[in-house]
Amino acid sequence: MIEVNIVGTGNVAWHLAKALGAQNNAVVMQVAGRSQASLEPFKHMARHTVTINNLTAADVTIIAVSDDMIAQVSEQIPFDNTLVVHTSGYTAMSTLSRKHKKGVFYPLQSFSKDDVSLHFAEIPILVEAENDEDEKTLRELASMISDTVQVINSAQRRQLHLAAVFANNFTNHCYTVAQDICDQYEVDVKTLHPLILKTAQKALENGPTNSQTGPAKRGDKEVINKQLDLLENPDHKDIYNTLTKAIYTTYGKKL
Amino acid sequence: MIEVNIVGTGNVAWHLAKALGAQNNAVVMQVAGRSQASLEPFKHMARHTVTINNLTAADVTIIAVSDDMIAQVSEQIPFDNTLVVHTSGYTAMSTLSRKHKKGVFYPLQSFSKDDVSLHFAEIPILVEAENDEDEKTLRELASMISDTVQVINSAQRRQLHLAAVFANNFTNHCYTVAQDICDQYEVDVKTLHPLILKTAQKALENGPTNSQTGPAKRGDKEVINKQLDLLENPDHKDIYNTLTKAIYTTYGKKL
Repeated sequence: MIEVNIVGTGNVAWHLAKALGAQNNAVVMQVAGRSQASLEPFKHMARHTVTINNLTAADVTIIAVSDDMIAQVSEQIPFDNTLVVHTSGYTAMSTLSRKHKKGVFYPLQSFSKDDVSLHFAEIPILVEAENDEDEKTLRELASMISDTVQVINSAQRRQLHLAAVFANNFTNHCYTVAQDICDQYEVDVKTLHPLILKTAQKALENGPTNSQTGPAKRGDKEVINKQLDLLENPDHKDIYNTLTKAIYTTYGKKL
Repeated sequence: MIEVNIVGTGNVAWHLAKALGAQNNAVVMQVAGRSQASLEPFKHMARHTVTINNLTAADVTIIAVSDDMIAQVSEQIPFDNTLVVHTSGYTAMSTLSRKHKKGVFYPLQSFSKDDVSLHFAEIPILVEAENDEDEKTLRELASMISDTVQVINSAQRRQLHLAAVFANNFTNHCYTVAQDICDQYEVDVKTLHPLILKTAQKALENGPTNSQTGPAKRGDKEVINKQLDLLENPDHKDIYNTLTKAIYTTYGKKL
């Protein structure tokens, strides 16, 4: 049985509390948050709901707060020399207070409040710890809720998090631009849905470089220039120019 | 029974010939290509395989060639006053020779040669014609192979094709950058696969603006600046800068 504390009441904290709380071999002992209101959704999940100063030690204390609060919150934890982890892809393990046995428990997913049907089993969890015993504990805990558990170091995780910004944040904004264009010209955006799904599936199956198509890949300057003329929004133009240039460069052609 | 000619031997021609050839109410009469070698894969599909000058009229002649060849090829067709369509999202219907009854038959998908398992039923087909009778013929033909058939005009189709460049070409290149970063730091790119699929699915289910997350959306300048420092490839930096600025602007924040 692994006893867990959770510090934080945001989306990651909530999904972790829910997933770990459903396990036979883990128990969420306490959840700490800044206010009673933020703790309200956790009241039926954890045995105790407390402010951070009242936390008592557990096998693993998971800090699931925003990146810029990790150092401060880890310092405020009122015990030392137990395993304390954060859940950030971006933040180094060393950001945690030196009074703890440090670790990282990073679920690689973009969590939203409305993810009621989130399946943790499909979400990779990347763990890191200062020693083998703690690493084993984190692997064991992660394996309870996820089918994909890997050990990577802080430098790799920071790069993986950066890659995820491209794979998630930036692709999602490209979808947003596509939707804007469809809305403006009264074309049903659902017409694009099969293409969006197929693009993702093909990139996974064949690799994205094998799947690249379009005017930039072909070096079709006439289409590129006419499409630039069609774009009215300056940010859309910038995205078109920048990605077209990058695709050109990648596939060995010059503008 | 709708009799069809296909002019062209590329990916779109091949997938159309295969899909239409499998229907009871359509028959591919002839396929025209530039060389015997390019026509070879079609020999078991169509009754006749000929050069363009030997084509005889059919109910619908589908020109599936590159955008810049559509006008010339449509002029070379040795008959007139029958329905001739192209398959281009980008090209106006009026590009076709005036000697024909003009139309468009645009399957919205990114076709690759290795798409052996392509399901045409899921691919929207956008049709356009000069008169109601021809539009009806095209809707009938498209409905045989696709579950989603819509009539849109040339201006709308050109915008839809532009939206598809964002939704397909540009997202795919974002996947490529993510893969480059993972490869460079020896992180298994498969770790990103659930995120990539989930990003596409969430954008379809909840809309992309409701699904946007990340440092640009949050306006987290510290993370943005540090991630820019991590990027070594200047094109990757440009993409990061441009999309971050666009996301900022979209969600009401200033850099």
